Amino acid sequence: MTSSSSPSEASGSAQPFCKRADMIVHEAEPFNAETSLAALDESSVTATDAFYVRGHGPVPEIDPGQWRLRVHGRVTRELSLSLTSLREAFREREVTATLQCAGNRRAGLIAIRDIPGEAPWGAGATGTATWSGVALADVLELAGPLPDAAHVGFEGADHCTEATPAQPFGGSVPIDKACRPEVLLAWSMNGEPLPPVHGAPLRVVVPGYIGARSIKWLERIEVRTEPWAGYFQQVAYRLLPPEGRPGPGEGMPLGLVALNADVLSPVNGEAVPAGPVEVRGYAFAGGERHVARVDVSVDGGATWSHAELLDDLGRWAWRHWRVTLDLAPGSHEVIVRAWDSSAATQPEDEAGMWNPKGYVNNARPRLRLRAL
Amino acid sequence: MTSSSSPSEASGSAQPFCKRADMIVHEAEPFNAETSLAALDESSVTATDAFYVRGHGPVPEIDPGQWRLRVHGRVTRELSLSLTSLREAFREREVTATLQCAGNRRAGLIAIRDIPGEAPWGAGATGTATWSGVALADVLELAGPLPDAAHVGFEGADHCTEATPAQPFGGSVPIDKACRPEVLLAWSMNGEPLPPVHGAPLRVVVPGYIGARSIKWLERIEVRTEPWAGYFQQVAYRLLPPEGRPGPGEGMPLGLVALNADVLSPVNGEAVPAGPVEVRGYAFAGGERHVARVDVSVDGGATWSHAELLDDLGRWAWRHWRVTLDLAPGSHEVIVRAWDSSAATQPEDEAGMWNPKGYVNNARPRLRLRAL
Repeated sequence: MTSSSSPSEASGSAQPFCKRADMIVHEAEPFNAETSLAALDESSVTATDAFYVRGHGPVPEIDPGQWRLRVHGRVTRELSLSLTSLREAFREREVTATLQCAGNRRAGLIAIRDIPGEAPWGAGATGTATWSGVALADVLELAGPLPDAAHVGFEGADHCTEATPAQPFGGSVPIDKACRPEVLLAWSMNGEPLPPVHGAPLRVVVPGYIGARSIKWLERIEVRTEPWAGYFQQVAYRLLPPEGRPGPGEGMPLGLVALNADVLSPVNGEAVPAGPVEVRGYAFAGGERHVARVDVSVDGGATWSHAELLDDLGRWAWRHWRVTLDLAPGSHEVIVRAWDSSAATQPEDEAGMWNPKGYVNNARPRLRLRAL
Repeated sequence: MTSSSSPSEASGSAQPFCKRADMIVHEAEPFNAETSLAALDESSVTATDAFYVRGHGPVPEIDPGQWRLRVHGRVTRELSLSLTSLREAFREREVTATLQCAGNRRAGLIAIRDIPGEAPWGAGATGTATWSGVALADVLELAGPLPDAAHVGFEGADHCTEATPAQPFGGSVPIDKACRPEVLLAWSMNGEPLPPVHGAPLRVVVPGYIGARSIKWLERIEVRTEPWAGYFQQVAYRLLPPEGRPGPGEGMPLGLVALNADVLSPVNGEAVPAGPVEVRGYAFAGGERHVARVDVSVDGGATWSHAELLDDLGRWAWRHWRVTLDLAPGSHEVIVRAWDSSAATQPEDEAGMWNPKGYVNNARPRLRLRAL
C-alpha cells in the first residue's frame, strides 16, 4: 500500500517538487509541468530541477526499505527484489537518454483545432538526463523469459483516476527492446538520487520510446505474450486518424518516438536586431536513429542553411544545434527541418498532423521573427 | 580471380539473366533493371524473374567449388569458409525481406531538375523475397569480434569501373545490426538457388537497410573499427544537400531505409471508369520499423481514406495495401501517405527532396487519374 504526497507539502521552492519557478505548470494535481525553452537552451543535459513532469496520478509515497520489485508472468523464475538486492547483485549502468512526452508540441495542434481535456504542451515536454541503475536485460536474464515471451510490461505504484477503471500507470515494450543494454531500471538522475516526482525509488528508462513507456514508481514487471492491456496502452497513447474516437484498440499504438525538432531561441514573435542572428534548438531522432542534419530556411524552403550539431551525448540523446542567419530588417519566417539517420525528414504541414488526442506533432517548426 | 559473363549469353529469355520481358532496363552492362509496376502488383512476394537488379559491374563468373569466404580484421580467429562448410556447420535460416535501392523513385526528382549520370529509376527499384542461408551473427561468433569491433564490412567479387579507383562493390553496417538474427548470408531466393545476377553463390541480405549494403558475390567480410572506406560508402550512397558536391565523406551516409510508399495500380495518368476505383500500392517502413497505416486522399489532403493493409510477411517486409475510392467523372489527384510504427509520416513536397545524386525520394506519391 502506498499513500501519496500533495504537491504543496513536497517542497519550499517556487514550484512544487523542487522545480524551478520558470516551469510551465499545466496541472497541479496530478503534477504536469514543462521545461521553459530558456532552461532547455541552457545545456544539452537538462537540469533535474527543470526537467518536465508528466504525471497521471498523485506522486505515491513509497518506503524504500519496504519496496519490492516483483517480476513474473512468462518466466521460469518469479523474482521479488529489494533495492539492496538490485544494487548489490547487478552491475550498475549509465545511459544518457532523451525522454519525450507523446504530447510534446500539442499546443501547435490545438491552435488548429481545439483538443478538449488535453494539456497544451509546448516544446518543453522533453528533456535529456543521465540515468543510472541496472539493465532490465540483466534482471530479465535472472527471471528467464519463456520461449513465448514477446513483451515486457511495467506497472507503477501510482493511482490514476483518469483511467477507466482507475489503475496504476503501465505499459509494455517488445522483449527484443527490453533486452537491449540501454533499457534501464534507474535509481539515479543526473548523478543524484532519483527524485520522488521522477519515480523514486525506481523507474524504467526506455531510450527512443515515448516517455509513457518509462514507467515511474515501478513495482511490477510482467513478461507477457501480448502487449500491455491497460488503459494507458490500449486506449490512451494511440494515434487516431482525424475522424477517430478513442476506444480500446482504436488507432495505432505509439512506441518509438518520431523524428522531431524545435527552436529554443529566439522565441516565436521575438524582435531581434537585424544582421546576424543565432538561432538555436533541439532535434531528436527517436527509435534507434540519430540526428544526421538540421536545416534552417528563411525563404520558405527554397534554400536551407545547415545548422551546427552541438554536444554528441551518444545514440540515445537529442542534439542541440545552432545556426547564424543574416536577417534584413523586416518580418521573417524561420522554418526548421531535421533529418534522421535513415535520411527521413519531418512533414511540412502541421495542420495535417492534427489528431483527436493531440499526439506526435512533429511537423517542421515555424517561427516568426521581426528584425529591427 | 573471376571473369564475368555478358548479359547476352546469360539467357534465352526476352531479357538477359532470365528476367521477364516487362522489366524496365536502365543499363545493359552493368545490368540495371527495375520491376514493372504490374509485376510488383501481382504479389507481396516479388517473383525472382521480375526482381529488380542494381549492378555496378559485370556479373562475375564464380566457380562455387573454388569459392571461399574470408572473414578477417578485428577478430580473434580468421576464417576461410567453403560453401560446403557454411551449409554443414551452421543452422540454415530464412527471412522474408524487402530490398530497396536508395535511388528508387529518382525519376520524380529528375522531373524537378536533371541528375546527369544517374539512372531514372521509377518505383520498381524495390522488391520482397524470401532469402535463406546462414545468420551472419553465427559466422561472426565463430570468428570472435575483438572488443573494438564496431562495423562489419562486406566486399563482392565484382569489378566496378565507375568507382575511383576501380574496385569491388563494398560497404559496412554497424556491428550491432550485423549481429542481429535477421542479417543473412544467403544462397537461396524464393526457394531456389540464388541466381548469378542476384549474387550467387552467396550474398549479404541486410533487412531494413538500403540495397547497397546487401553485397552480392560476397568474398570478404572485414570486421572493422570504422565504417567501410571504399567508394560506395565514402563517396556514393550519401545524401548531399541540394547545393552539395560528391566527395569523400561529403553528405550523410545512407543506411536505414526511410519510410516510403507508392501506387502500383492504376498508373499515373490512367483513365478509369467513374465510380468505385480500387487503388493498390506498397508501403515500406525501413529500419526496424513497420507500416502502421496508409492514408489516401482525393481532396488535396483535407480528408483521408484508410487503406487495407494486405499480407503481413513479418517485420522486415513491406505491406501491400488497397483502398476503394469513389471517383466522380473528371480529373483527380490521388495523394498517399504512409505512417510507420513511430507515427512518422512522409514529407509532402517532392521538390524539397531534390539532391544531387537523387537518393531517398520518399515524398508522398501523387497520381493523376481521369474518371470517365
